[in-house]
Amino acid sequence: MGRRIYTHDGADVYLAAREDGVGLTSLCAGEGTCGKCKIRVVSGEVSPLHEREREALSVEEIAQGYRLACLTQVHGDIRVEIPLESFAVSQRVELSGQEKTVVVDPVIRTLIVELTGPSQTDNRSDQARLVDHLSERHGLSDIQIDLYAQRRLSVILRENEWRAKLGLHGNEVVMAGRVEDRVLGLAVDLGTTSIAAYLTDLETGEALAAKGMMNPQIAYGEDVISRISYAIDHDGEPLRQIVVEGINKLIGELCSAPGLAADGIAEVVLVGNTAMHHLLLGLPVRQLLLAPYVAAVTGSLYTKCRDVGVLVSSGASIYTMPNIGSFVGADHVAMLLASELNDSRVTALGIDIGTNTEITLSANGRLSCCSCASGPAFEGAHIKNGMRAVAGAIEKVKIEGDSVTVETINQRPPVGLCGSGVLDAVAQLLENGIIDTMGKLGSHPRVQSTDKGKEFVLAGRDESGTGKEITLTEKDIGEIQLAKGAIASGISILLQDADIAWHEIDEVVIAGAFGTYIDVASAVGIGMLPPLPLQRFSQVGNAAGVGAKLALISKAQRRVAMDIAQRVNHVELTRFTGYPRVFANALRFAPARNWKDNG
Amino acid sequence: MGRRIYTHDGADVYLAAREDGVGLTSLCAGEGTCGKCKIRVVSGEVSPLHEREREALSVEEIAQGYRLACLTQVHGDIRVEIPLESFAVSQRVELSGQEKTVVVDPVIRTLIVELTGPSQTDNRSDQARLVDHLSERHGLSDIQIDLYAQRRLSVILRENEWRAKLGLHGNEVVMAGRVEDRVLGLAVDLGTTSIAAYLTDLETGEALAAKGMMNPQIAYGEDVISRISYAIDHDGEPLRQIVVEGINKLIGELCSAPGLAADGIAEVVLVGNTAMHHLLLGLPVRQLLLAPYVAAVTGSLYTKCRDVGVLVSSGASIYTMPNIGSFVGADHVAMLLASELNDSRVTALGIDIGTNTEITLSANGRLSCCSCASGPAFEGAHIKNGMRAVAGAIEKVKIEGDSVTVETINQRPPVGLCGSGVLDAVAQLLENGIIDTMGKLGSHPRVQSTDKGKEFVLAGRDESGTGKEITLTEKDIGEIQLAKGAIASGISILLQDADIAWHEIDEVVIAGAFGTYIDVASAVGIGMLPPLPLQRFSQVGNAAGVGAKLALISKAQRRVAMDIAQRVNHVELTRFTGYPRVFANALRFAPARNWKDNG
Repeated sequence: MGRRIYTHDGADVYLAAREDGVGLTSLCAGEGTCGKCKIRVVSGEVSPLHEREREALSVEEIAQGYRLACLTQVHGDIRVEIPLESFAVSQRVELSGQEKTVVVDPVIRTLIVELTGPSQTDNRSDQARLVDHLSERHGLSDIQIDLYAQRRLSVILRENEWRAKLGLHGNEVVMAGRVEDRVLGLAVDLGTTSIAAYLTDLETGEALAAKGMMNPQIAYGEDVISRISYAIDHDGEPLRQIVVEGINKLIGELCSAPGLAADGIAEVVLVGNTAMHHLLLGLPVRQLLLAPYVAAVTGSLYTKCRDVGVLVSSGASIYTMPNIGSFVGADHVAMLLASELNDSRVTALGIDIGTNTEITLSANGRLSCCSCASGPAFEGAHIKNGMRAVAGAIEKVKIEGDSVTVETINQRPPVGLCGSGVLDAVAQLLENGIIDTMGKLGSHPRVQSTDKGKEFVLAGRDESGTGKEITLTEKDIGEIQLAKGAIASGISILLQDADIAWHEIDEVVIAGAFGTYIDVASAVGIGMLPPLPLQRFSQVGNAAGVGAKLALISKAQRRVAMDIAQRVNHVELTRFTGYPRVFANALRFAPARNWKDNG
Repeated sequence: MGRRIYTHDGADVYLAAREDGVGLTSLCAGEGTCGKCKIRVVSGEVSPLHEREREALSVEEIAQGYRLACLTQVHGDIRVEIPLESFAVSQRVELSGQEKTVVVDPVIRTLIVELTGPSQTDNRSDQARLVDHLSERHGLSDIQIDLYAQRRLSVILRENEWRAKLGLHGNEVVMAGRVEDRVLGLAVDLGTTSIAAYLTDLETGEALAAKGMMNPQIAYGEDVISRISYAIDHDGEPLRQIVVEGINKLIGELCSAPGLAADGIAEVVLVGNTAMHHLLLGLPVRQLLLAPYVAAVTGSLYTKCRDVGVLVSSGASIYTMPNIGSFVGADHVAMLLASELNDSRVTALGIDIGTNTEITLSANGRLSCCSCASGPAFEGAHIKNGMRAVAGAIEKVKIEGDSVTVETINQRPPVGLCGSGVLDAVAQLLENGIIDTMGKLGSHPRVQSTDKGKEFVLAGRDESGTGKEITLTEKDIGEIQLAKGAIASGISILLQDADIAWHEIDEVVIAGAFGTYIDVASAVGIGMLPPLPLQRFSQVGNAAGVGAKLALISKAQRRVAMDIAQRVNHVELTRFTGYPRVFANALRFAPARNWKDNG
């Protein structure tokens, strides 16, 4: 495979390869008992053949130079060939139909230990006994044992004939369980609106279960700004506690199946926007709202779960992925990681649509991103008949002449409009010439005037599920205009900043719950997205959650995420000369006109 | 001074010297502003003179090669002379009149930082801003910030014009305070009977205050065995909580003076016997009582104080010093450290007298120790008129012919006997031939018979403060006999094991509260201690607490303690061939006879 790995004299090949991201198959975690990690030493000096290798390998294999990687120590430069069947199981991670394959190599390393119990001639402490064993059998030095893991270790060892399965994070033992217990990992995408959690087997990388819930902080405000304001005016602690309770509830549900237990979770990886991140960790948030908009923490952090209140294995850490800045969080980093926009050799846009929309442009080897206040219109808020995307919400609209056809979620009679329905409606009004480029309603049999201005009737009293008309008002159209203006101007400025024309974009990745459901043609139709051929767009769903899962099962992916967060250049829109003009232009509902100036 | 230090190219002399235990004076913690760390570069290549050095040094000094160590970077081998006045303040630690001088070089390093605050063109997060500063100005890489310290840091920086004083433990920022705040350390000696706590200024090593209290666990049993039994039969958690509350109470009292605050304590160092250690940390204790007597943890541990419940700076750790085994704890290690028995070039004994007595023999470069069950007699328990060493307790006894003179604590009328009084009484009875070598009372006007056997009247009804006779019974004498037999046989076996004769012992260090008050002549008189000339004995008081203080203010001392714990060879008395004979012999009240067989 052409890889060069540097290691120290006496290192075993299995660990050296694993450290460098080349996972070899093993059932025994390098104990020399399963015989799975076969390699062929082509040249160079290695340790003599071990007795257990004679058992595991055929005479023919031995003659050909086959060895077990975990029992082979390096002495000087060696050349090794790895048979295909010895490569570790890779795990496929689905990202909306696309699949990404990563070698399972989590930060948490699992080891099975089998100690000799104490006797009159050997009454070393449990700790000393384990540390000595890890040094002698696994070459691990400077081992620390988390106090909470130690408490459990002493019990587990005595109840299981001095055998245990350990979870190690670097040189720290963070978990001790029975040999037959699964070592689990949890990825959490902590969104402003919803929380998604994914349970994974850390030894195989297998996805075990996923659950979602509304973010219970919604009781303190729908959007980030109102929650930060609450924390400033009152106290952030109740917001912190309620979201921790929510996460713990999800953990309980995920671990309700037989063989799964919350105290088997050896690590949690969490992404969220910067405000959610700060509220969860109890970091100050006031400065996030005040110019020059400074985060308390952008770098990744390992914090013991017990310090946050997350109820998993008591020695486990929660790894919060790096944020980019005060308004671009780790969820966007995770999205970029999942969609591989960071090493895109094409010119690509990644867009996370939400109340706050984050956009990253990858062009000419550079990553630049911005955040724009697209507002809550796409979540149905600030829209007269707006609602969340639940049963009865209009999600598609078609206008042909005088007739209007609507499609609702679960085919129920319409009771309101969700974000994609609003977007569709506006696009159809524009396409049919019923609104002008500034969103003013013209004449149409379905346009009616009220004391609050004009509105368009999408469903009459007799058609709706509420017995009331469902309408789209000029004010509603104005909300969409602001949202699309914010997003389009964000894209425009990133393009200008990178000196790229819109038609040079090869790929647009749209992520986030709302982004998954919108009709891209409608979004292009109103000029929110550049008028590229539709096949250049992909809608990838919860890419942030996928990114968190990748960082959970792969050290290498975690390093890539760190690199992304450091490389991304944050463009502050309001500090960009000419922003007001670009924004004003982007407000128009006219694709050709909007985008022709760019680049 | 002849020291060689190895460091990397570009290292600054101040830090390189400090890392290696050569502390240089500094008020600014290596910021280049105080001008205190003057050195003279005799030969070799170093970085060019810094502007701030031109300000701090005279023209003459510059001509002579003087530099500031913190602004001088090494390039290749150099030779440096350190003027006397540049050596860091050393701190004298008193150990019962003797003084030990150590260079103040605590594990917690203090740094004053002065950051440039955020602006429109620089909105790095607080964390990134600090990490960058520590890298650029202090050459520190891979810096982590404890989450709790980070919470406080963001507030402190904003309230103090982006200046702060940091406490670092290795590469982790564990505390953030105002520049004018003191950085404090706490040493705790957690005894079965009492807790002693010592507050220290970690920057100067200065002892600020000391406080003691009874160990509140006494409510769960007087001795270690009964407390472990309680924890096994019921639950260890109440014992854990009550002792944590006790420590917190002491912290509150120690920090009640102006300028001192519990959240200024950046580290806690704790010693105790292994049972106290395990109960405090919530470790399992059952196996401490069952053969082969295994500790859960012997190695030193760093645990966040918040994980234990000790209320100091929220990012601080509690460092529990290493234990030797299940019955020889870190308090004994600390005692050996304080009394320097580890590198004694003479043959020396260190004895910690208590309910459990630990004894270490240092001979021919080896350290061997044992633990013997001396019982609670010396604490006044199991003695008919026994009591603790409080006002009214008889502490000295003199018998001349028919007359008995007693001295009591605070010169109150006698109400009972404390340990040293019991010991004195037995020694006097033996010296006057009133008891035989097996402790049987003979005839004397003060000897009387009761239904429970014979007893000796120390104070009559009219002499005592209780209106009742104060007597020493044959059973009481038997208790002392068991205690002295346990201690004397422990010493004997250590001597036999090392092939040393008792008269070869050059020095005997007696530590512990009881050890401080006993009359050594009496202890020698009854054969508890070898009959050496009295000037070879020293009574050093709470040496364990002194050892904890040393480990608190000196990294080097902490390493010595680790070395002691690893080097000490634990001798299990009951597994020693011939122990029953030695013990039986040691039971006799006869110094010459007892000791003549040894070596």
